[in-house]
Amino acid sequence: MSIYVLVHGAWHTGAELERVAAPIRAEGHQVHTPTLAGNRPGDAKTTGLKEAIRSIVDYLAENNLSDVVLLGHSYGGMVITGVADLVPERIRRLVYWNAFVPNDGECLNDMVPPQYVGLFEAMAAERGDGSVVLPFPIWREAFINDADLATAQKAYDVLNPHPLKTFTDKISLKVNPAEMTVPKSYINCTEDTALPHTLPWHPRLSSKLGLFRLVQVPGSHELCFSDPQRLARSIMEAGRD
Amino acid sequence: MSIYVLVHGAWHTGAELERVAAPIRAEGHQVHTPTLAGNRPGDAKTTGLKEAIRSIVDYLAENNLSDVVLLGHSYGGMVITGVADLVPERIRRLVYWNAFVPNDGECLNDMVPPQYVGLFEAMAAERGDGSVVLPFPIWREAFINDADLATAQKAYDVLNPHPLKTFTDKISLKVNPAEMTVPKSYINCTEDTALPHTLPWHPRLSSKLGLFRLVQVPGSHELCFSDPQRLARSIMEAGRD
Amino acid sequence: MSIYVLVHGAWHTGAELERVAAPIRAEGHQVHTPTLAGNRPGDAKTTGLKEAIRSIVDYLAENNLSDVVLLGHSYGGMVITGVADLVPERIRRLVYWNAFVPNDGECLNDMVPPQYVGLFEAMAAERGDGSVVLPFPIWREAFINDADLATAQKAYDVLNPHPLKTFTDKISLKVNPAEMTVPKSYINCTEDTALPHTLPWHPRLSSKLGLFRLVQVPGSHELCFSDPQRLARSIMEAGRD
Repeated sequence: MSIYVLVHGAWHTGAELERVAAPIRAEGHQVHTPTLAGNRPGDAKTTGLKEAIRSIVDYLAENNLSDVVLLGHSYGGMVITGVADLVPERIRRLVYWNAFVPNDGECLNDMVPPQYVGLFEAMAAERGDGSVVLPFPIWREAFINDADLATAQKAYDVLNPHPLKTFTDKISLKVNPAEMTVPKSYINCTEDTALPHTLPWHPRLSSKLGLFRLVQVPGSHELCFSDPQRLARSIMEAGRD
Repeated sequence: MSIYVLVHGAWHTGAELERVAAPIRAEGHQVHTPTLAGNRPGDAKTTGLKEAIRSIVDYLAENNLSDVVLLGHSYGGMVITGVADLVPERIRRLVYWNAFVPNDGECLNDMVPPQYVGLFEAMAAERGDGSVVLPFPIWREAFINDADLATAQKAYDVLNPHPLKTFTDKISLKVNPAEMTVPKSYINCTEDTALPHTLPWHPRLSSKLGLFRLVQVPGSHELCFSDPQRLARSIMEAGRD
Repeated sequence: MSIYVLVHGAWHTGAELERVAAPIRAEGHQVHTPTLAGNRPGDAKTTGLKEAIRSIVDYLAENNLSDVVLLGHSYGGMVITGVADLVPERIRRLVYWNAFVPNDGECLNDMVPPQYVGLFEAMAAERGDGSVVLPFPIWREAFINDADLATAQKAYDVLNPHPLKTFTDKISLKVNPAEMTVPKSYINCTEDTALPHTLPWHPRLSSKLGLFRLVQVPGSHELCFSDPQRLARSIMEAGRD
């Protein structure tokens, strides 16, 4: 039995991964769904990437976790890469689920299309507190394309404004992912168009892992809402030895 | 409940989409399967793209249809793009099913491999009435690769010679698809090799839509024959709000 | 009913394809699973590509086989291409299953990433008898990513050291695959990362076939171990007329 720590993406909290955690727990595993600094109620929306990474390092220490299968979704890929660089001794395997894979000195915005960078900046300027939100049409068509409208709307309503600084902070790594000796997996939802397929998650970003295990599954970027059971099965295939 | 208008591809008529329409109607929707000018019995094989587009504009007007989910298959993507440019007020959503997506001034032949352009020209020269047909080996291997031979043969037997002019006429658009404000979906059959995967439907052509909803489904270019029920489900996922 | 001859890949023997052959036989077909020269117990590990090709040509002659659906897996694609060039009159259809497709004068190593070429050379130098083996971590993560660890280990234990010369010998063909008139199919396992998806089997290598039938199926490079029944169904879809 394994210990899973699931790290959510931008605009989410750990709570949204509870329906994914349940079927994994039902197979006898331990599952943690912490919420990153910057996304917890009351967190300053000026939170940066280093603080987000630190919040997971602290979580592992406080809960005395080792031998962990550490999964990151989307922006969470930035975070787990940083965590693996700081406390490799606690990690059994890294699992990226349609997640960003940074090398030393890269930020999330370096890996997204220019129109997103521009949208995020314009939105943060308009909101004024350092945070960005996703316009509903982009969420509905490009992020959760596999759900019906009611599911898409309900999921949208629980999102929280996300600190833009975590997208623009460059990560500092001693070792790039391809050179990390920890085993790695990449879960690719085949209908994920949160990044356009002209500039895709896989193999564009996954190939930065060096040797890794590929798991593919039908679904959108937000399979945690549209089919959490199916996602849970993929996570267990990605996370096993 | 929605109003679907399904626009067939080259060599087809609306009748071949009736088995796709049936499961959509069974869910309570209204479904129309008009046949394009150029493909109706007795139509001149010198029919051009503008007349084909006009035949759908007229169909919508004659049947007083608005709030329409307008789907185009393959060559039908040329047609629905032209229709959306002329009567955007009648359309709720455009759905491209492995379909061509033209910008202003492009023709279908601009988006296919050079060997097809050459084949079409040679065939039209040989036939002499302005029409082209598909050689059976190309149909069987590249268009309907997911069916058994009997299904492939039976479907081939109902095809009609297609006016080449509709492939070479350049479309005239006031607004390119990416700038159209109507919502858009793209259905991609993942084994569709009617266009080779080195020059694919998705994301090469789908990305010309700007923001769009991707739906993928296993199947060939001719899923309407090999699994009409499965295609119907994908159409409803693509067509819903 | 058809006659199938299944040609295994590097490190394998025909015996590993018996669980794939069984469901095909259950449908009434005849299935042969010969082992290539170089992979039979006692074969010199200095065996070259020409001898491997010759061993299948001989097998067809000795068993008086014609009208054969000839399938090659991975390295087996080199072999069946050579066989089709020598005895086209015996073959009804070629089926490549995540297999190399060579043109005249190419060797297998011309189609793999440089890191594999280097790994193979270093390993052969170390082993000293002309053979190479796959390190278990590469096998487990990149070749059989869809199986559990026990299945991966059990399959690994039956592999045999493979003659490197078959990877570096350039094939000699009278006719390149695209110009061969025999019908051709390509089975692509969609999670096959034995070749990285930045340098993929399909469409990079499949497109060298000219007109071909694509069949795709979920699974890794070693679907023969992880789901032989599913692979058998795909083979029958690829092999039928």
